[in-house]
Amino acid sequence: AADKPSTASKPPPTKPDPTTSDAAKGGQPSTAPSGSSELARLKIRLQRALRQFPDFPEPGVLFEDILPIFADHELHSALIRALELHVTSSYGIGSKPDVIVGLESRGFLFGPSLALRVGAKFVPVRKKGKLPGPTETESFKKEYGEDFFQMQSDAIKAGQKVIVVDDIIATGGSAAAAGSLVKKLGGTLLGYVFMMELDFLKGREKLDAPVYTLLRGQNKSSEKEEPTKNEDDYDMPLRTGGFGSDPVPANKLTHNREQNEIP
Amino acid sequence: AADKPSTASKPPPTKPDPTTSDAAKGGQPSTAPSGSSELARLKIRLQRALRQFPDFPEPGVLFEDILPIFADHELHSALIRALELHVTSSYGIGSKPDVIVGLESRGFLFGPSLALRVGAKFVPVRKKGKLPGPTETESFKKEYGEDFFQMQSDAIKAGQKVIVVDDIIATGGSAAAAGSLVKKLGGTLLGYVFMMELDFLKGREKLDAPVYTLLRGQNKSSEKEEPTKNEDDYDMPLRTGGFGSDPVPANKLTHNREQNEIP
Repeated sequence: AADKPSTASKPPPTKPDPTTSDAAKGGQPSTAPSGSSELARLKIRLQRALRQFPDFPEPGVLFEDILPIFADHELHSALIRALELHVTSSYGIGSKPDVIVGLESRGFLFGPSLALRVGAKFVPVRKKGKLPGPTETESFKKEYGEDFFQMQSDAIKAGQKVIVVDDIIATGGSAAAAGSLVKKLGGTLLGYVFMMELDFLKGREKLDAPVYTLLRGQNKSSEKEEPTKNEDDYDMPLRTGGFGSDPVPANKLTHNREQNEIP
Repeated sequence: AADKPSTASKPPPTKPDPTTSDAAKGGQPSTAPSGSSELARLKIRLQRALRQFPDFPEPGVLFEDILPIFADHELHSALIRALELHVTSSYGIGSKPDVIVGLESRGFLFGPSLALRVGAKFVPVRKKGKLPGPTETESFKKEYGEDFFQMQSDAIKAGQKVIVVDDIIATGGSAAAAGSLVKKLGGTLLGYVFMMELDFLKGREKLDAPVYTLLRGQNKSSEKEEPTKNEDDYDMPLRTGGFGSDPVPANKLTHNREQNEIP
């Protein structure tokens, strides 16, 4: 199982309550007192809305579904408010972000809304070949090879303060590549913001800016001991190369977990 | 060139001013008088923000870049306000949408913000294999084969009123598939909303609900006669099947225009 680091890894046997224990998430900025109780209440509501699907997209994986949050107007509003509270209270006076950078494609679901809310511009990180004009490219390692992210070269001005957002941090490879792109463009990386974190994959160790995670990916029942994980997406491994060809059967995915880094 | 319908097609030689001539877009609901002058002003600002990139992603294609709108907080706000004005004025009293359905992945850039603004829930259409739990699947034709979209089966309740959004309508295949999924789930399709339309591809003829397009994909200078087009994305044709393999060179894309329908 050494070649299946994701599914072979186990979450810690005991986990702190993710809705109350900010201090347990080492290195993450704390929120200001004024917004912290509101934020705590929002996190409880949002955490309850998550759905888990066992054995998706393959046996042994417990998939955390964030979509119920977007499918409920009040929860959706609560999500953006919670992220706003974090952003406006965490990076110090005078450090309001100029840019929210969102990773394709689930970072697109809330990155633009957050940018609108905090008065920042929104800039996407996309897979190679999708952005017109001059671009910067960054590779990141996957289990068998590498993949590429791009940003438009003029998307960030030198010295602009940037927050990188995505739905879930798993192994951290794609987020680290996005952070590198931000720095290549001259941006100042204030930090990373994720909806969820798969702690046992230690993705935050790849990142050299503060990491904030709103919720935790975990079993609803603490009695279960299945590994809880999500990869960011399943774009490539689900398809063979032929145009219009059928998806690769699930049993072919077993050894390609790291390929799924690109959302 | 018969096998390259997209690039071979030409836009009409004369086109009405897209910022003032709503009536010229047959079949699209008109806005109420109260919001129409504000909407007209917003459209002028948004139209000016578009950037064009010749010969991307292949020679002869003029790529319309919508990202400058998201990279400017005021323009981004104007976009969501313009779409809100359309939605709140176009579908009649008592026909406020319950659901905004956004197509992966550029429909994710503004669909959730619009849903927040109009009090609707947001539901994504994703490529096959990405959504957990019971799903409905719809195929759509591409030039050489077909591809598949999915929605979660419980994403829409019977009778809910739905608007489908995406950034650009080109040939209309992916939008038609999304509309079919909405109906399979029991939703009532109020209409389609796009940021831009490539009129000469006649994509709206594939759709059986009202189509609204905020802007037009076109040359900034009307003296140019290049075909103006964007496909929704370039996910699959840019890659071979091997995991971690290099993108297919641009000259391999020539005969695979329709493959690009999935955003």
